Amino acid sequence: MTPEEFRAAGHELIDWLADYRTRIPELPVQAQVKPGDIKNQLPDRAPRAPQPFSSVLTDLEQVVVPGLTQVQHPRYFGWFPSNASLSAVLGDLAASGLGALGITWQSAPALTEVEEVMLEWLRELTGLPATWKGVIQDTASTACLVALLVARERATGYSETGGGFQERDRPLTVYTTAHAHSSVVKAVALAGYGKANLRYVDVDTASYAMRPAALAAALETDVANGRQPAAVVATVGTTGTTAVDPVAEIVRLARQHGAWVHVDAAMAGSALLLPEMRWLADGVDGADSFAWNPHKWLGTVLDCALLYVADPEHLIRVMSTNPSYLRSAVEGEVTQFKDWGIPLGRRFRALKLWFQLRLDGVEAIQARLRRDLANARWLAEQVEAAPGWRVLAPVTLQTVVLRHEPPDHHEDALNAHTLAWADAVNESGLALVTPSLLDGLWSVRVSIGAEATTRADVAALWQILRQTAEA
Amino acid sequence: MTPEEFRAAGHELIDWLADYRTRIPELPVQAQVKPGDIKNQLPDRAPRAPQPFSSVLTDLEQVVVPGLTQVQHPRYFGWFPSNASLSAVLGDLAASGLGALGITWQSAPALTEVEEVMLEWLRELTGLPATWKGVIQDTASTACLVALLVARERATGYSETGGGFQERDRPLTVYTTAHAHSSVVKAVALAGYGKANLRYVDVDTASYAMRPAALAAALETDVANGRQPAAVVATVGTTGTTAVDPVAEIVRLARQHGAWVHVDAAMAGSALLLPEMRWLADGVDGADSFAWNPHKWLGTVLDCALLYVADPEHLIRVMSTNPSYLRSAVEGEVTQFKDWGIPLGRRFRALKLWFQLRLDGVEAIQARLRRDLANARWLAEQVEAAPGWRVLAPVTLQTVVLRHEPPDHHEDALNAHTLAWADAVNESGLALVTPSLLDGLWSVRVSIGAEATTRADVAALWQILRQTAEA
Repeated sequence: MTPEEFRAAGHELIDWLADYRTRIPELPVQAQVKPGDIKNQLPDRAPRAPQPFSSVLTDLEQVVVPGLTQVQHPRYFGWFPSNASLSAVLGDLAASGLGALGITWQSAPALTEVEEVMLEWLRELTGLPATWKGVIQDTASTACLVALLVARERATGYSETGGGFQERDRPLTVYTTAHAHSSVVKAVALAGYGKANLRYVDVDTASYAMRPAALAAALETDVANGRQPAAVVATVGTTGTTAVDPVAEIVRLARQHGAWVHVDAAMAGSALLLPEMRWLADGVDGADSFAWNPHKWLGTVLDCALLYVADPEHLIRVMSTNPSYLRSAVEGEVTQFKDWGIPLGRRFRALKLWFQLRLDGVEAIQARLRRDLANARWLAEQVEAAPGWRVLAPVTLQTVVLRHEPPDHHEDALNAHTLAWADAVNESGLALVTPSLLDGLWSVRVSIGAEATTRADVAALWQILRQTAEA
Repeated sequence: MTPEEFRAAGHELIDWLADYRTRIPELPVQAQVKPGDIKNQLPDRAPRAPQPFSSVLTDLEQVVVPGLTQVQHPRYFGWFPSNASLSAVLGDLAASGLGALGITWQSAPALTEVEEVMLEWLRELTGLPATWKGVIQDTASTACLVALLVARERATGYSETGGGFQERDRPLTVYTTAHAHSSVVKAVALAGYGKANLRYVDVDTASYAMRPAALAAALETDVANGRQPAAVVATVGTTGTTAVDPVAEIVRLARQHGAWVHVDAAMAGSALLLPEMRWLADGVDGADSFAWNPHKWLGTVLDCALLYVADPEHLIRVMSTNPSYLRSAVEGEVTQFKDWGIPLGRRFRALKLWFQLRLDGVEAIQARLRRDLANARWLAEQVEAAPGWRVLAPVTLQTVVLRHEPPDHHEDALNAHTLAWADAVNESGLALVTPSLLDGLWSVRVSIGAEATTRADVAALWQILRQTAEA
């Protein structure tokens, strides 16, 4: 495709996207398709001859859009906010169009240095320690795996990357809560600790946050039994209820045993842009690593997860390679992000942060986050005041976990009722919420924070929930 | 940013990108900046108020472009082709603009199913076994790590993900050659095999391909010494010389010992779109996994690596998690790509493949790849015919490894001469090549395959090389 063909098609696509974003409110939130519906509309083989851009745009309209759950919809209250702010989309377009190759500093100095500056801008905005350095990863899942890999190496004196699977006189043990994200158990498994060596520390029955006393007991019991605590994964804003593990106390206990502390704030990290919410991460300056995803609530478009570490030298020692064809005269003077994570080749992801922060400005982003927090408190008040409805967890952030509990329903009947009305809401296409298990019973998560969601949308959702569940 | 603001800025950015792509030939290929030059031009803090799009575009022009090595330049012959075809850029823009959330099939059915179809289109185009299934990863580095993680679990009966670091009566051993990509040793380390348990099997002194007899001997010796061969990583098109390890023979030997075979064709995989080049992967039907990067020579824009596996069930068994908030009624009927790799959240990367294959058509892509192969053969002929110049490795694909060898230069002097003229070429900004160690001496890799590179550019490069080295 020539630059002039790109210009013509690009203008069409920009217009199509602007129109699409404008009409999202009219679309069903949940995709109304069945398994195979999309596949069945596509040919078996790639076309041998070029097709006109109009045919691709038609398929985008007729095949792709109906096949997507509209997470940019103002009545999307599902899993977690997954905003793709249009300012960040422009930055991502610039990244793709420039086609830079991030393998070493030399291959794309601006890619490396803008990334360093963006990590520093966001470090300052979120109040992380000034000595910490960061890197963009694809997701918090990868960031967690990287953290547990480097924790493993610190715990073993680099024996696993060096000598490989060693007999361990003192088995390595990892600690988190049952409310941690599924990526924690995945990282524990992939990094080779083994799921059997992951301890789910008790949580407080009201706040669902890790109980420091329970962590202390688990650490002491394990050490007495000849185990080596290698890492604690603390969650700031769990997926289920946005519970906040007490980072300061966890750090204090972990340090006594030399365990790495990784803080997973994938969704909630955005809230740290609000000074009044900085308490969420109190104590983080004693931790070893911290990850959060601007691609969630903040709106920086998948995929953009930030991983900060207190000791970059250790990270680099575990991750670095240095083949001859990647060497240059500037070693030691520059950051080589290839040695800060798993992939060698990296996109210019910093551009979408740069564009977004500049085009939207920090104050407007802060105002939006505060709007969402207020909307969640407002919804929680409505739910608390309505007969037969209950808020099941503290509303610390922008998520309200709720249940409609008709007086004659217990356990199985309540579960069936909850799943039935949640499914009815989702299948209506009018709004999207997420059923989730809490204390062994199904509840419904309302995660507020789509960029387009106003108070009126939350009020409309509340009417939809009542009408559907109470029907 | 509103859709209408996006429309206006988007048109400006499309025009800017079209203009940028048009004037790339006038830019220096290698970035002419020093460490810190970019950072020093950026403010310390994020702006609190929004800035106009014009100021961002100005910085793109004045700060970013001079800070990039232009890998889309027609005289870019560096590391490896890193094409960002404009048709694929449009697909990537569509992906960002749609802002889909790939966590489960339900969250974005079209994202999942278009990805399945694209993997099938490219499976057919590259001649991989019809029973194999694939998934998009970010890079071949990650694909290799995933392959070695699942190989580890097959070799240990899932003991590492389950029980964790076990005493191994029979240490797990991995085999590759010293010409394999640096991501192999990195994956061996991160997956916990340990660098000490990676065997570099001898290569043929002329072709730099793995010697099956040497692999057989290494396997037998290790087994006799109580070791367990866990995996062999075969490279189809090594980074240094595009050597092709003999996959069929490697598969035969590995199978005798139950070792996993991962085939890394990161760069060379694109060549499999040419029926006459299918021999590169002869025997792959007996392997366990195969990875290649459309984001290299093919031009699908970073990041887009395809990982195919013979046994998806095993991959899923190692990688899957299933928290309550991600469950849905369609389990078993759909593909859940979250269980095919490390990240949970995934971009709609399949769109860039879809756009590119449709807008360019397979035949035009094939013609471009054939052009590059012919250009490499042509350059090799010129080098062979020139006094004092030598081609150092078979030109199997699009890379020519060469050296200018003045008669009075030996070892140290030859190394100094090679690095000096290569640096002079690169610093001139007229073209970019990559110095690389081969058999302990510095050589120069000319990797042909930028989308814009014509025969005239290769001829111009050859004049530049001669003038610089012979001066």
